[in-house]
Amino acid sequence: MSRPEHVFSIRRMVSFAETDMAGVMHFSNYFRLMEEVEHAFWRSINESVVRIEHDQTISWPRVSTHCDFSSPARFEDEIRLELRVARLGQKSITFEVDFYRDLEQLARGRMTAVCCHMQHGRFDTTEIPGALRAKLEPYALADD
Amino acid sequence: MSRPEHVFSIRRMVSFAETDMAGVMHFSNYFRLMEEVEHAFWRSINESVVRIEHDQTISWPRVSTHCDFSSPARFEDEIRLELRVARLGQKSITFEVDFYRDLEQLARGRMTAVCCHMQHGRFDTTEIPGALRAKLEPYALADD
Amino acid sequence: MSRPEHVFSIRRMVSFAETDMAGVMHFSNYFRLMEEVEHAFWRSINESVVRIEHDQTISWPRVSTHCDFSSPARFEDEIRLELRVARLGQKSITFEVDFYRDLEQLARGRMTAVCCHMQHGRFDTTEIPGALRAKLEPYALADD
Amino acid sequence: MSRPEHVFSIRRMVSFAETDMAGVMHFSNYFRLMEEVEHAFWRSINESVVRIEHDQTISWPRVSTHCDFSSPARFEDEIRLELRVARLGQKSITFEVDFYRDLEQLARGRMTAVCCHMQHGRFDTTEIPGALRAKLEPYALADD
Repeated sequence: MSRPEHVFSIRRMVSFAETDMAGVMHFSNYFRLMEEVEHAFWRSINESVVRIEHDQTISWPRVSTHCDFSSPARFEDEIRLELRVARLGQKSITFEVDFYRDLEQLARGRMTAVCCHMQHGRFDTTEIPGALRAKLEPYALADD
Repeated sequence: MSRPEHVFSIRRMVSFAETDMAGVMHFSNYFRLMEEVEHAFWRSINESVVRIEHDQTISWPRVSTHCDFSSPARFEDEIRLELRVARLGQKSITFEVDFYRDLEQLARGRMTAVCCHMQHGRFDTTEIPGALRAKLEPYALADD
Repeated sequence: MSRPEHVFSIRRMVSFAETDMAGVMHFSNYFRLMEEVEHAFWRSINESVVRIEHDQTISWPRVSTHCDFSSPARFEDEIRLELRVARLGQKSITFEVDFYRDLEQLARGRMTAVCCHMQHGRFDTTEIPGALRAKLEPYALADD
Repeated sequence: MSRPEHVFSIRRMVSFAETDMAGVMHFSNYFRLMEEVEHAFWRSINESVVRIEHDQTISWPRVSTHCDFSSPARFEDEIRLELRVARLGQKSITFEVDFYRDLEQLARGRMTAVCCHMQHGRFDTTEIPGALRAKLEPYALADD
């Protein structure tokens, strides 16, 4: 449905420390992996999730996150994470992340983050700066 | 809405290792905390999330989990986690967890787990055993 | 050898997320637990590992840490951590932490941290402030 | 001092979730990274830290681990980990791991693991199997 250029993907091996006594990757780690592919995506457009400009720090605290699990990942599984920008709002962005081992889908995650000025440990929501928005739009499946 | 006896709660202090460079608890840790209050709940009814009986191990892999964040938690914040059994199915259970610092709500999570036999690292869904079900029902806000 | 008043201890249950596929607490978590008992110790003397005073932030980055493991800890084990101030230097402090399950010793850790001013993400070593030092001395098994 | 063929190395970027509120990689993560390079080393010789053969599982619980820290690692730093087999015993192996960012050394770790049969969640020490030993010897700086 989405054109291939909309998809950003990385490969990542499940580490021992990410497993739990059930022998599978602990579910909390899917959220860490979602963030890893997100941050790799920022880097791929020459940005960082923490953006410092004119003494201002822009970052993206999460307001909502979700994951559905269909099959467990195990130690030394090589998994592929596919990220899409599901929605680009005025002040927020929603990523969708699919987890695969070969052709099998393991999980699907979703994460909405809000553009914020960070100052003295406080977060204030702000509009996504134009220059940043211009870089994100080509990836967006939907925007307002 | 829910009667007080439906709520199970614990208190927990945010540790240094749970914070990230934004100075707040990393969002993946909310899922670890949801699991901590869930496991404390199992213990409160003299059960464990890993139940061994007649050579059979029953456990509860997660199939879906969600969290909305409204305010960040910080190092050494004492937070209160309130768990409710939002739904008790034939083979699954849905927990809802509210995170508070004093009167302020920080986050609300939701987590659905499926009753499974675990054997040789495989998970097979199974009906919730009757004895276990009987202990869970008084807490359930909804069941089928 | 050390007088009882030199020992500070906490109890802590091993969580599911702390286990790995070998069925035991992952060894990296011993270092997180060492830090938890350390921070609880700071609180017990009305301090915090992050101390803000007159616009100066004092903190304690680790310079060296060690742990010997004799017996594994498992899910829902209740372990007891005993902390001692093994050495109080001019600019550094060395903690020793023993891990027990009932009477059985599971591990022994050691951790040296250096007193630092933290500013703009930089750490500069500094002498331990006198007021802080006075609170630490009664616990020290050795000082210079 | 050690010949180049004795060194096994990987590169790894520091993730956001690995940082703490001091803005640097939390010290417990150095131990997770030590394990990552160790496991990559096992794979490089076509082995795994968990070795299943004739219904026997051999694994390597840690008995001692150490790390000295000289300079902090930060978010998105690309670090290089160099592993050496410092000592190959009859039943144990000691790895040394150096952490670098470009030419700057950040930390040096050391980890001793013991060859064990794992059965029903128990660990029994055993001699390193000959076939495995033969693969490890070319890397060993010292053996007995």
